Amino acid sequence: MSKVFVDVGISLDGFIAGPNGGTKNPLGDGGMNIHNWMFAQKSFREHLGMDGGEMNNTDNDIIENIFTRIGANIMGKRMFIEGEANWPEDSPFHCPVYVLTHEKRKSWIRPGGTTFHFTDENIYTVLENAKKTAANNDVRISGGARTIQHYLNAGLVDEFIIHIAPIFMGAGVRLFEHLDKSKFSFEIKNVVHSSEVTHLFYNVKNK
Amino acid sequence: MSKVFVDVGISLDGFIAGPNGGTKNPLGDGGMNIHNWMFAQKSFREHLGMDGGEMNNTDNDIIENIFTRIGANIMGKRMFIEGEANWPEDSPFHCPVYVLTHEKRKSWIRPGGTTFHFTDENIYTVLENAKKTAANNDVRISGGARTIQHYLNAGLVDEFIIHIAPIFMGAGVRLFEHLDKSKFSFEIKNVVHSSEVTHLFYNVKNK
Repeated sequence: MSKVFVDVGISLDGFIAGPNGGTKNPLGDGGMNIHNWMFAQKSFREHLGMDGGEMNNTDNDIIENIFTRIGANIMGKRMFIEGEANWPEDSPFHCPVYVLTHEKRKSWIRPGGTTFHFTDENIYTVLENAKKTAANNDVRISGGARTIQHYLNAGLVDEFIIHIAPIFMGAGVRLFEHLDKSKFSFEIKNVVHSSEVTHLFYNVKNK
Repeated sequence: MSKVFVDVGISLDGFIAGPNGGTKNPLGDGGMNIHNWMFAQKSFREHLGMDGGEMNNTDNDIIENIFTRIGANIMGKRMFIEGEANWPEDSPFHCPVYVLTHEKRKSWIRPGGTTFHFTDENIYTVLENAKKTAANNDVRISGGARTIQHYLNAGLVDEFIIHIAPIFMGAGVRLFEHLDKSKFSFEIKNVVHSSEVTHLFYNVKNK
C-alpha cells in the first residue's frame, strides 16, 4: 500500500522559499540557500544530471532513500511553472508527476522517465490516481506550500519529513500556514542531523 | 568566562506563545502546550516546587543540565509582568534575574534564591552586570521573543537551544522575526530528540 509523504526543506524561521519567486528567480531571493546541503550531495546531483558531490554520509543516504521510495509526485501549478522554466530537459523526478492545474494540456513526456500529467480533478482523485501509478512505491506531495497544506488539511498525508537548514530567510513563503490542526497531528518518528542540516521525520495522525 | 545562551521552546510553526497572552492568560491561547514535554519532567517540576515527574530520560537530563549552568537570567518587561502574576512565590529561577524595564523598582528578593533586579540600562551593560553576577556560570537570555531578538541582533549570544514541540499554534508570538541576519549565523552543534520534543543546539557565530 502506497504511503503519502511530504519531504521539504525549510529555513530555521520556517520558509520554504524566499520572496519574489518566479520563473526567472526560482525559489525566490536567497531560497536556494535552504537547499545548499542537498546540492552538495551526490545522490541529489545525479537526479539533476550533475557530476560530483559527497557520498557515504547521512545527508546523501537520506536523499537516496527518499528518491528510491517515490513512485509518483503531486505538485501545484506554480511549482510546475517555476520548475518548467528551470529544470534540465532530463527533469529531476524520473517518475510520473501529477500537476494540479485548470489548464488543459497533454501529458508531457521528458527524457529520463519523468512524465507530467496535468489534471483539474480534486486532490482526492488525483491522489488515488497517483497511488495506482506508484504501485508499491510511495506518493510524494512535492509542493509548493499551498499544495502541501491542502493535502495535510484533507487528512491525506501519512509521513512528513522536514529538512531544517540553520539559516534565516526573514521573508518568503512559509510552510506552516493555513493549517487546520483539528484534522491531524504530528508524532516524532526520528530525527537525525549533520553539520549542515537537521532531518525531522514525523508520522501524521489524521483525525 | 560566562557564555550567553538562549533556551526556548517553540511549536513546529515557530511560535513561542499563543495569541491573547497576558497576566490572566500566561503564554497565550494554547501556549502551555508548547511546554507539555517540560512539565512532565521531574527536573522542571522541582524548579516550580512541584512533586512528581519523569526522570532518567533525555528530556529531563537536558533540563537539568540547562538549569545547572545558569548563573543569571535576563528577561523583558512583558515576560516578567506575565510571570509575576503567575509564578509561585518561590519563583522558578533560583538565581538573579535582570528585568529590562524603564520602571524604577527596588530589587525584589523571593524565597528560594531568585532576586529580580529592575534596570533601564542598555542591553550591553545589563549583560555585563549579569555576567559578573553569574561568575563562572552562564547567562540565559530568558525571553520574550523581542528580548531574544535584541540580543541576537547585537551579536551577544553564544549558544541557542531550541526545543521544538510537534504541535501547531497557527497564531501567536513568533520567535524568529525582526532578525538582522547580517549580524550572526547559526551552526549546528547537536540535535537530540525524544518522542515528545526535538532539542536543537546551535552555536552562534557573531559577525
